[in-house]
Amino acid sequence: MSTRPVFYISDHTGITVETLGNSLLKLYPSVKTNIITLPFIDSYEKAVDVTEIINDACLQSSLKPIVFMSIISPQIRELFHEKDFIVLDLFKAFLSPLTEAFEVPPSPEAVRANIEANSDEYETRMDATNFALNADDGVTVKNYDNADIILLGVSRTGKTPTCLFLALRYGIYAANYPLTEEDLEESSLPKSLLKHRDKLYGLCINPDRLRSIRIARRGEGKYASQQQVNFECRSALTLFQRNHIPYGDTTLSSIEEVASRIFSETGLKRRINF
Amino acid sequence: MSTRPVFYISDHTGITVETLGNSLLKLYPSVKTNIITLPFIDSYEKAVDVTEIINDACLQSSLKPIVFMSIISPQIRELFHEKDFIVLDLFKAFLSPLTEAFEVPPSPEAVRANIEANSDEYETRMDATNFALNADDGVTVKNYDNADIILLGVSRTGKTPTCLFLALRYGIYAANYPLTEEDLEESSLPKSLLKHRDKLYGLCINPDRLRSIRIARRGEGKYASQQQVNFECRSALTLFQRNHIPYGDTTLSSIEEVASRIFSETGLKRRINF
Repeated sequence: MSTRPVFYISDHTGITVETLGNSLLKLYPSVKTNIITLPFIDSYEKAVDVTEIINDACLQSSLKPIVFMSIISPQIRELFHEKDFIVLDLFKAFLSPLTEAFEVPPSPEAVRANIEANSDEYETRMDATNFALNADDGVTVKNYDNADIILLGVSRTGKTPTCLFLALRYGIYAANYPLTEEDLEESSLPKSLLKHRDKLYGLCINPDRLRSIRIARRGEGKYASQQQVNFECRSALTLFQRNHIPYGDTTLSSIEEVASRIFSETGLKRRINF
Repeated sequence: MSTRPVFYISDHTGITVETLGNSLLKLYPSVKTNIITLPFIDSYEKAVDVTEIINDACLQSSLKPIVFMSIISPQIRELFHEKDFIVLDLFKAFLSPLTEAFEVPPSPEAVRANIEANSDEYETRMDATNFALNADDGVTVKNYDNADIILLGVSRTGKTPTCLFLALRYGIYAANYPLTEEDLEESSLPKSLLKHRDKLYGLCINPDRLRSIRIARRGEGKYASQQQVNFECRSALTLFQRNHIPYGDTTLSSIEEVASRIFSETGLKRRINF
């Protein structure tokens, strides 16, 4: 089967178009694609160059190229629509209903101005990221006062990546607490967490999955033994249930799935939304 | 001005729809919105509940609600289209041209199967994130051999958050090297980096911006003094230029912008694309 050339073209980072494109392409698992992202296409001249790159791809493939396009300028968009490409134009599809609803035209200048004005937003993300790094693995218990959320779980359930994702993407101050052998045996929360009960969220995982993650990380041994992971997974679950802590399973879940569940189950608010 | 109720509805995490929605709404800076994300709406029953939540919002606002929707099921989509909402349907807009081009129907089951099969993808992201954490601030120079990219810059130019973003989102193994006073004075690369010349990318920043970041972080003092930041910023730039290292300015740039520039300027390949 031939490979389909796919282009993600954007006048900015291309993140929006690649997020949308990837989620659409996943619906066609039998289709082989060759994806090229071309960001910052913010002038007519650059756009003309891009059409030539795509034309070259046309010559090398028997399949018509698919162009996902997130570009505000109507002139540039027109340039692509005129060509013999399959163009999926994000803005064309959605700007007219929005403009009609809002009764104001879109203002492309606003995007740049917004970024420049929003160094606050940037600072929040940086602060939150530093917070996650510093609050990692319970090192600085005093940070719990400033946390928006505290993730609990045994070692290797995905606490750190989830905290970092929440920080980088949403500016959330996320701390984490690794459950200790003592916590698990007594099925009770450590004192330092008792006053933060409303910020707690537990992460669970399937024992077999945990075992394979731990083996990959540190090899065979007590840490990865069947008996140990069974004990830890079962005890963590009991602890969450007994203390009425909301929790989610991270087995086979992406970081995005875990984060979305935390938002919808705890009522945690996004601090920023880029 | 009234606040417009906006809903992001998804049968999965809602990340795609919130990314698209946010980038569209930024084009209308005068519009005040109240955004509610409702993820995992994957059954007809849940969808009916959601329409009721949106109906309630209708009653409380004089403005018709806007519903950005990323849902595969035609039955559920229909339910929203029948209502008196302004519905922006991601899949409706794009699935028919794709299905026509690919000559196969979309396969919603494939999405779930893909996630389950792709624990490799998950491992790559976790590995890359651990790599970024361990390789942070040049602690483990030996990791440079395994790095896909090595970011250079003076303290507080955004190296760590950029590395973490590259790891979490794209599975990129990103290390960083904080330029030392000695590197800056001699305008030369340390030995440990010489053999990795093709992996280097420099981060620059405006001195006034750097000064304010450092003051926020550690207060006034030599570290944040005008003289010191001027010296560091100027010397870093000279070092990049003299050693032919590609570089980008992080002043007023989001992490996403910096990352996109790195991809487009260095030819670095995304390891995964979720």
